[in-house]
Amino acid sequence: MDSGLTFERAQAALAAAVAKAQAIGVPMSIAIVDGGGHLLAFGRMDGAGWATVKIAVAMAETSAAFRSEGARLKPFVNDRWFNSIEVAGGQPPLAGDAGIPIVLNGRLEGAIGVSGGSGAQDRACARAGLAALGIHVPE
Amino acid sequence: MDSGLTFERAQAALAAAVAKAQAIGVPMSIAIVDGGGHLLAFGRMDGAGWATVKIAVAMAETSAAFRSEGARLKPFVNDRWFNSIEVAGGQPPLAGDAGIPIVLNGRLEGAIGVSGGSGAQDRACARAGLAALGIHVPE
Amino acid sequence: MDSGLTFERAQAALAAAVAKAQAIGVPMSIAIVDGGGHLLAFGRMDGAGWATVKIAVAMAETSAAFRSEGARLKPFVNDRWFNSIEVAGGQPPLAGDAGIPIVLNGRLEGAIGVSGGSGAQDRACARAGLAALGIHVPE
Amino acid sequence: MDSGLTFERAQAALAAAVAKAQAIGVPMSIAIVDGGGHLLAFGRMDGAGWATVKIAVAMAETSAAFRSEGARLKPFVNDRWFNSIEVAGGQPPLAGDAGIPIVLNGRLEGAIGVSGGSGAQDRACARAGLAALGIHVPE
Repeated sequence: MDSGLTFERAQAALAAAVAKAQAIGVPMSIAIVDGGGHLLAFGRMDGAGWATVKIAVAMAETSAAFRSEGARLKPFVNDRWFNSIEVAGGQPPLAGDAGIPIVLNGRLEGAIGVSGGSGAQDRACARAGLAALGIHVPE
Repeated sequence: MDSGLTFERAQAALAAAVAKAQAIGVPMSIAIVDGGGHLLAFGRMDGAGWATVKIAVAMAETSAAFRSEGARLKPFVNDRWFNSIEVAGGQPPLAGDAGIPIVLNGRLEGAIGVSGGSGAQDRACARAGLAALGIHVPE
Repeated sequence: MDSGLTFERAQAALAAAVAKAQAIGVPMSIAIVDGGGHLLAFGRMDGAGWATVKIAVAMAETSAAFRSEGARLKPFVNDRWFNSIEVAGGQPPLAGDAGIPIVLNGRLEGAIGVSGGSGAQDRACARAGLAALGIHVPE
Repeated sequence: MDSGLTFERAQAALAAAVAKAQAIGVPMSIAIVDGGGHLLAFGRMDGAGWATVKIAVAMAETSAAFRSEGARLKPFVNDRWFNSIEVAGGQPPLAGDAGIPIVLNGRLEGAIGVSGGSGAQDRACARAGLAALGIHVPE
């Protein structure tokens, strides 16, 4: 039976992303949303500014909305049609390296978004979170 | 006798657009609105992200509002007057290749909007939907 | 394998609800959303006013948001906390007899909403739609 | 030494609130914000609808904004001045029994908000979360 992206799994992914952020010494916000873009789990580490909250959440929402890595959406960031979409109340999409869909058993179950460091650092933490779910994405 | 864009016709157009999307192997959202921009028929195919819902609907609304193909509205996408118009609650117009008016017997009866692939793919599906209504638009 | 609320199933539920509405002779709008409240399928029958579009969609969104039949939410319709929630861009919840969650294999996969007749008529059509999915809810 | 509401403490409060919700058998969303109303920690349990996300977050934001328990703000819920305040982008305050400030060493460090059950159930979980921080509030 496929139990999808449970509370327990979302917490495990969050913890793994946090552990990676601690390892590289950069405070991060990590957000995990369900397939519909609604928040499942969130953590902000000591020293991460509150601007990172919205960025992490919006990157996760965007990857769920488009079923796509944020990196693939970058060509559209200045297109009006792209920005006319609200991924949450009033929030336009945010395409970033650290927004990655969570696909379990071939089904979109959610997405992760990370913010606080460079794009590469954020992505490394997102990848660590996904690895805890058995999902391996390229660097 | 002009019976306009009936439920049956809207469903037929939707089915034809879906068949085309299946043929080219790209999951799409297809929206058909009436002349007032209000939804008549909608379908989202397996694998199409939820961001496509709003795009397809907004493109159809925009073509109904301006009685014009979305492609012809592209010169205006950065104009303030264009964006000050709400085609639905808070939604500015969305000019896309796959927004096309539905004109039957010389009368604007609605519009179709499609989202999920490239502009050309979306438009091919919109055209297939219109062909089911006896409306033939150039590529 | 549980394939969830597929396009095909959503279309079948929509068709069954429409057939019921035709049988009782009342034009309806029928909306089916996924678990995140995002539109999957929609149809408006000939003679159904466009106000029914938003009602049907909002009732479905509300049942998905609260994982609850709209009828059970009626005690809250005048509560400010209830109305401060947006089930879609700017849209507060709409609790109605014809908003019913779609649960498949114990998992919330979406919801149906119907509008056009009396509460009892709308609900009869929603129930007919669900029956096509093997879901049987009391009158 | 006052180390404030650290990541570690926020996670501990979240875990304690979740444990209480599991004990009473009601799935909840739990949100913890900092003194500025910005999210620190969040968890949504299996079976909690996505409507609970916004409720939990808004109740926490409101308690941080007014440095006050939500229960004490209820007399103001119909006042225009109260509703003219945005505790987040466009979100008016949400006064609920389960919104409680987090005061450590006499300093407002944040707030907790819980949603998913009755007001009393939500509050029981919020109180359990605070107890993990050494904060004891009356039932």
